[in-house]
Amino acid sequence: MKKFKIALLQSRVKEDKEENLKNASDMIYNAAMGNADIIVLPEMFNCPYANSFFAGYAEKYPGTTAEILSELSKKLSVYIVGGSIPEIDDEGRIYNTSLIFNRNGSLIAKHRKIHLFDVCIENGICFKESDVLSAGKRITVFETEFCKAGVAICYDIRFPELIRKMTLAGAEIIIVPAAFNMTTGPAHWHVTARARAIDNQVYIALASPARNHKSPYIVYGHSLVVNPWGKIISEASTGRQIIFAEIDTDYLEKIRQQLPLLMHRRTDY
Amino acid sequence: MKKFKIALLQSRVKEDKEENLKNASDMIYNAAMGNADIIVLPEMFNCPYANSFFAGYAEKYPGTTAEILSELSKKLSVYIVGGSIPEIDDEGRIYNTSLIFNRNGSLIAKHRKIHLFDVCIENGICFKESDVLSAGKRITVFETEFCKAGVAICYDIRFPELIRKMTLAGAEIIIVPAAFNMTTGPAHWHVTARARAIDNQVYIALASPARNHKSPYIVYGHSLVVNPWGKIISEASTGRQIIFAEIDTDYLEKIRQQLPLLMHRRTDY
Repeated sequence: MKKFKIALLQSRVKEDKEENLKNASDMIYNAAMGNADIIVLPEMFNCPYANSFFAGYAEKYPGTTAEILSELSKKLSVYIVGGSIPEIDDEGRIYNTSLIFNRNGSLIAKHRKIHLFDVCIENGICFKESDVLSAGKRITVFETEFCKAGVAICYDIRFPELIRKMTLAGAEIIIVPAAFNMTTGPAHWHVTARARAIDNQVYIALASPARNHKSPYIVYGHSLVVNPWGKIISEASTGRQIIFAEIDTDYLEKIRQQLPLLMHRRTDY
Repeated sequence: MKKFKIALLQSRVKEDKEENLKNASDMIYNAAMGNADIIVLPEMFNCPYANSFFAGYAEKYPGTTAEILSELSKKLSVYIVGGSIPEIDDEGRIYNTSLIFNRNGSLIAKHRKIHLFDVCIENGICFKESDVLSAGKRITVFETEFCKAGVAICYDIRFPELIRKMTLAGAEIIIVPAAFNMTTGPAHWHVTARARAIDNQVYIALASPARNHKSPYIVYGHSLVVNPWGKIISEASTGRQIIFAEIDTDYLEKIRQQLPLLMHRRTDY
């Protein structure tokens, strides 16, 4: 039996970066005290989600945020999927980047959001990440002692090809720091998470920031974990909250044997 | 504006093939009286869904069922997506096949189910289509004066690659005669239909037979139509019923412009 515990930290993001990092650290500590093996922060957990903030909050790796996460993962002996932060490279390009640390505090993976969020919905959300951000180019799958895990960021989850690719690369849980909004959240958050879990017979974990009505971009909240049968096994409300879920790779294997979608998948038509 | 009306016929399937064809014909007539442009029958509408029946009910094309559907589509000037029937070819192979007729009564497409339903779920459904049936090899997209339409059959819908392929081939509505059961229906029917619509920004129409507790295979019912935003715009209950929905390709275009998923889709990672 390979069971482990994941914790999703629905942290509240404010304009004060230092306060965001302090809050995230406190929640990581609490999640570790709750015996989490993998701890997941939300998208842009150290920076308000708005184009006007990204450059000012951006860090080169390894910067302040990376150092804090590395130290905590080592001290608490946990995996940390560092939600995402604005990361700036040597050429000055800014990415929406997730830093992933193992139990020794080593960076073992880095996901740069592949699909930039450029949408404008009538009477709803308008946002254009590509005005400020650059896009990643690679899928991200990392190893743990339990199973392989994939990481995608927010809008990435809308593309079934990407989740399928990580599944075929062996990921049994797909971890998605994400900040859906009050237009797309109610309409698509649960159904997309559940369908990706059902189609790929993987666990799906979406970690959102807490809802903040003072923010220019109001996030949906509802961090959740879905099992490979498509059932939501843990879900947050909209406020600051830590949720835990047990991941059971034996259960995943059972679902794949009984409903062998991945075996029946064809590419020859 | 390109609007049209689709009707899904949730017919009750019994052991008497002649009675099944008579019932289907009556419902087609009623749907046409309700001004449907495209009329959709459910999976295996002329034959109980069980391996022991398929060979006995199988027809070479053009057989009795095809002739009835062809005549009705011409007489009523409607498209008919003929759910599915067991079709036998010259070599004696049996397929789960949908015959599609235009308003002139001409066969314009034929879909043979690509993914055979071979599953066995603990305390749930067990079925092995491949004991009796052969699999199709091609996607099916046909033209109407409104838009292109794709056809898949039941288990086919579980494979996001197939629905994506039909979308990329231009289908704006995917029509799926389907007979989910009391294990997979409650767990996966609505969420899978909605996610396919959201991801591909197409209309999805699932046509199920009516639930029949006397049958060896108890179907879920709940025929439904989902719009490209993922909203269920029409849904049947579990009994014998015709549902109608308006398909609006201008609305589809608007969704694709505001949330440009198909433009943002990448294959280079």
